[in-house]
Amino acid sequence: MKFEPKDRDFIEKVYKSFSKQAVMRLIGAELTKVEPGKVDIKLPFRSDLTQQNGFIHAGIITTIADSACGYAAFSLMPQDSSVLSVEFKVNLLSPAVGDFFKAEGRVIKAGKNLIVVSGDVFAVKKKEIKQIAAMLATIMCVKSN
Amino acid sequence: MKFEPKDRDFIEKVYKSFSKQAVMRLIGAELTKVEPGKVDIKLPFRSDLTQQNGFIHAGIITTIADSACGYAAFSLMPQDSSVLSVEFKVNLLSPAVGDFFKAEGRVIKAGKNLIVVSGDVFAVKKKEIKQIAAMLATIMCVKSN
Amino acid sequence: MKFEPKDRDFIEKVYKSFSKQAVMRLIGAELTKVEPGKVDIKLPFRSDLTQQNGFIHAGIITTIADSACGYAAFSLMPQDSSVLSVEFKVNLLSPAVGDFFKAEGRVIKAGKNLIVVSGDVFAVKKKEIKQIAAMLATIMCVKSN
Amino acid sequence: MKFEPKDRDFIEKVYKSFSKQAVMRLIGAELTKVEPGKVDIKLPFRSDLTQQNGFIHAGIITTIADSACGYAAFSLMPQDSSVLSVEFKVNLLSPAVGDFFKAEGRVIKAGKNLIVVSGDVFAVKKKEIKQIAAMLATIMCVKSN
Repeated sequence: MKFEPKDRDFIEKVYKSFSKQAVMRLIGAELTKVEPGKVDIKLPFRSDLTQQNGFIHAGIITTIADSACGYAAFSLMPQDSSVLSVEFKVNLLSPAVGDFFKAEGRVIKAGKNLIVVSGDVFAVKKKEIKQIAAMLATIMCVKSN
Repeated sequence: MKFEPKDRDFIEKVYKSFSKQAVMRLIGAELTKVEPGKVDIKLPFRSDLTQQNGFIHAGIITTIADSACGYAAFSLMPQDSSVLSVEFKVNLLSPAVGDFFKAEGRVIKAGKNLIVVSGDVFAVKKKEIKQIAAMLATIMCVKSN
Repeated sequence: MKFEPKDRDFIEKVYKSFSKQAVMRLIGAELTKVEPGKVDIKLPFRSDLTQQNGFIHAGIITTIADSACGYAAFSLMPQDSSVLSVEFKVNLLSPAVGDFFKAEGRVIKAGKNLIVVSGDVFAVKKKEIKQIAAMLATIMCVKSN
Repeated sequence: MKFEPKDRDFIEKVYKSFSKQAVMRLIGAELTKVEPGKVDIKLPFRSDLTQQNGFIHAGIITTIADSACGYAAFSLMPQDSSVLSVEFKVNLLSPAVGDFFKAEGRVIKAGKNLIVVSGDVFAVKKKEIKQIAAMLATIMCVKSN
């Protein structure tokens, strides 16, 4: 799907907001793509992010998927808007093992107030890539005044 | 709802597994209740867990809700089983601001293989308590062999 | 939870809108409770609503749960608003067998634009009652102009 | 994605089970595609399927999406299995208006016991086609004995 950004400074705006998400620094995630309606986030494996079996915790996978979805929606919002996650659903498809993980947020439907976004998360191990989670999220555009 | 645990060492088993979730140490979460089908997790506010507006990131709220739901399900599983999150849906009701947060996992339906759990997350500020998130999760019981 | 209706004619408004849902007549569903933030719908068993095993189809259970949630939200909306389902998630807990089914929509959080509602569906067989589905829904209040 | 069916009579099996879903006759839905991991269902518009604004009720859209997802999963199951919907989430993207509707169930991940399926529903009006709903579903394979 092709979307037209309403704010021509959308790339700068997304990077700036992402840099304020302290939790992204804590877990070591970074933005790797910002296009209209499409945002990718990369997270290297780290053992302090794991659950009891040594896989990355589903909540941390959700953290990067939610930010990827939220910023994919934010990239299409007009100036002076802020972004809010209304709800999301995540299916965990395979254990989160790998060298690093990539969350891809892709806008499905851009309404004026509500944006629906899909978020696929992949594990990358050597050259192999495998989908490990699928998110379907509802994001809200909040006008500043 | 009242549930009968199948493993009489369920409390020890839940604490032991929780202590292996490295990410819980990273974010500062702790177990505060383990009863048959009911598990609570507490997370104090910390500024390195926040998103761009200074609220706790929805993914971190999901992290404690998912562990509370998973361990509520695990508390009812027979010995030699392991626990796996199949999927969850989270509605974010209010911004995650407060002194600390409490996730309450409560089993709704305990099937043999699949357990359905609700997870409510509350923010506590001084004496005031407010629900900030609602999770509905499907958890799987995996037999060890 | 206790909610204050913004439209004192909310009961009449809900019954009137429900009577326009042609599909409710088709499947034989009826409104059985309308209180602020709480709506119940009853559906008698009918063999033409079933799936391949003779249970009521999950989509029909969802139909009454969605209307119960939507009207629970609608009961709290101001005059001249209309109601729209944004999304819902349903866990199917047990096969839908019984003499009749009852869907209970209960508002969890009433925001200005978005209302979060839980919808529990029960099967009633003779005197026995059993929860067969749990919904968590996001409903939108659309201002007429 | 490409999937290998485990039952070479999967097409016949899906048609046979679908023909037992009495509710599909009631609403006028029919199977239009059965391939490994892919099932389509078509539903013509009918005014007795509508909600208060004259759109097809979200629950009926869910009914065809759920059957499309369930049968997409069933097409990959071994002989002597039966299919069960564990849960689904649906985002309603646009009002369900059109001449007819098409639900496309597509398997995302085929586990041994659990199959994750996406279900997109489209409205077709004259030559125009528009996505009106997105489902993400978890389906279970139940072994007969």
